[in-house]
Amino acid sequence: MSDLNTQHLAFKQQLFDHKLLFGSGVNGIVGRSSKIVELVAALHGMVDKESVKDGAQKVAFPPVVPRELLRTVGYMNNFPQLSGSIHSFSGDDRQHLALQETVKNGEDWSPHLSQTDVTLTPASCYPLYPTLAGNLPEGGALFDLNCYCFRHEPSNDPARLMSFEIRENVRAGSPEEVQKWRHSWLDRGHNLLESLGLSVVLDTASDPFFGRGGRMMKASQKELELKFELLVDIWGKDNPTACASFNYHQDHFSHLFGIHLADGADAHTACLGFGIDRLVIALLKTHGFDMNAWPASVREKLAL
Amino acid sequence: MSDLNTQHLAFKQQLFDHKLLFGSGVNGIVGRSSKIVELVAALHGMVDKESVKDGAQKVAFPPVVPRELLRTVGYMNNFPQLSGSIHSFSGDDRQHLALQETVKNGEDWSPHLSQTDVTLTPASCYPLYPTLAGNLPEGGALFDLNCYCFRHEPSNDPARLMSFEIRENVRAGSPEEVQKWRHSWLDRGHNLLESLGLSVVLDTASDPFFGRGGRMMKASQKELELKFELLVDIWGKDNPTACASFNYHQDHFSHLFGIHLADGADAHTACLGFGIDRLVIALLKTHGFDMNAWPASVREKLAL
Repeated sequence: MSDLNTQHLAFKQQLFDHKLLFGSGVNGIVGRSSKIVELVAALHGMVDKESVKDGAQKVAFPPVVPRELLRTVGYMNNFPQLSGSIHSFSGDDRQHLALQETVKNGEDWSPHLSQTDVTLTPASCYPLYPTLAGNLPEGGALFDLNCYCFRHEPSNDPARLMSFEIRENVRAGSPEEVQKWRHSWLDRGHNLLESLGLSVVLDTASDPFFGRGGRMMKASQKELELKFELLVDIWGKDNPTACASFNYHQDHFSHLFGIHLADGADAHTACLGFGIDRLVIALLKTHGFDMNAWPASVREKLAL
Repeated sequence: MSDLNTQHLAFKQQLFDHKLLFGSGVNGIVGRSSKIVELVAALHGMVDKESVKDGAQKVAFPPVVPRELLRTVGYMNNFPQLSGSIHSFSGDDRQHLALQETVKNGEDWSPHLSQTDVTLTPASCYPLYPTLAGNLPEGGALFDLNCYCFRHEPSNDPARLMSFEIRENVRAGSPEEVQKWRHSWLDRGHNLLESLGLSVVLDTASDPFFGRGGRMMKASQKELELKFELLVDIWGKDNPTACASFNYHQDHFSHLFGIHLADGADAHTACLGFGIDRLVIALLKTHGFDMNAWPASVREKLAL
């Protein structure tokens, strides 16, 4: 094992040994200590300032969305491996006895459950789009939202959780308005993360579309430059971690949900997302565990 | 239909018509407008002040917990009907084609999915207890936490959501310390909610234990006064809504997870929870939709 790998493993272990994070026994599900709660609040505070400057409208949705929404956006075609469908028990006393026996034996409970009308939220912005059906105001609209998102990709990388916060801004408007907004955020986001003392690179990117069919989707997304990511050096420069992304959906969501401009033309949408839990790990890895000893400029930026 | 029922139905409809809440097409899953986001933040701010006064330690956990945790606490014995098990797809390209066909036809996808290691969080405090294994400091400990909780009870009552925030405090310590803390909160919680101009009654209560076997659990919980609730008049005095609860677990969680006092004796635990989304509805129902016109004392308490 290389020295770098050994050092990264030691860092990961220390996050738990120093009780900054709480392990749960399941990879990708972690709790936050007081120190991390404070840091997360500071990161949201930093984004708050940008949102207020832009006049973004804060809205919020729970970490659970209608199953029908995943169907409408084609999530099970594109990312079935990441999805989280919610199942519950609707049996009687007799069936409950059978369920309890299965649970007691540590066996798979699935046969005793049935699928509900809801799934876990895969991205903070998904539940927003159906609420925009109709005509946008003149000049379009800008939203600010945050949610715990779920992606079923168990990993022992604390910067790749299964349940994690994505703080998003969403712009809806004319193609020009939306493109201009996204373009301005590429530099602005880069500067924002650099002001936290992180080592950041901007690159085009693609989503993890499933299977053989997904390869074409990835290639097309890259070619059309629909997705940019800000990659931060957490585990080495050769293997940087996406801590923010900027996605241009063109008229994808507008078509699905009937979102129009004030004059009736099809709207376009774009979103940006900050991976809050990844930024926490990036900051701790870069500046160390003692937040009091972080560079003054970083502490100031985070109002710590 | 009585005049009261008509008035309540009109109020529920107005929550959505005035775009205070966003419907999702599924009962019990709603989004929050900017106004509601502001009100939720104000309610958390109010609890923050109490927590800081008490020196509570803020910690946080995601809305998803290990399946094994539900098994350990006996959740599937007691509340299977409310549970949310998370299932995902782990098949190959061929199986994906079959999944897509099922989804396209609007059929039950369950047969194509398998149970993961995680379920939805039923109560904010559950994931805390395993992290307390070992010896508590002298005098015990006090925690402050908030999480979106899931309970599968679809309803068109906006004060009975499937995914909703429970802001909790948890006290762990000797039986005397824990009982004293819970007892002091009965009055304190009552006063806190009354200071919001709400009509509040304190009563003993029981959890919705499942089935025939559950009846005895409910009776015993009431008899031992293990659960108190603050009931708020939202839909009429005869049918008040629990907006806060105070639960004494005795040594239940301490036994399960090995939580001890500084001297090695078994610890006791208790928790209090505020139903944030219910308080929002209670406030809007009591004082109206125009937050600027709410009583000065309520606005002051919420720092609006």
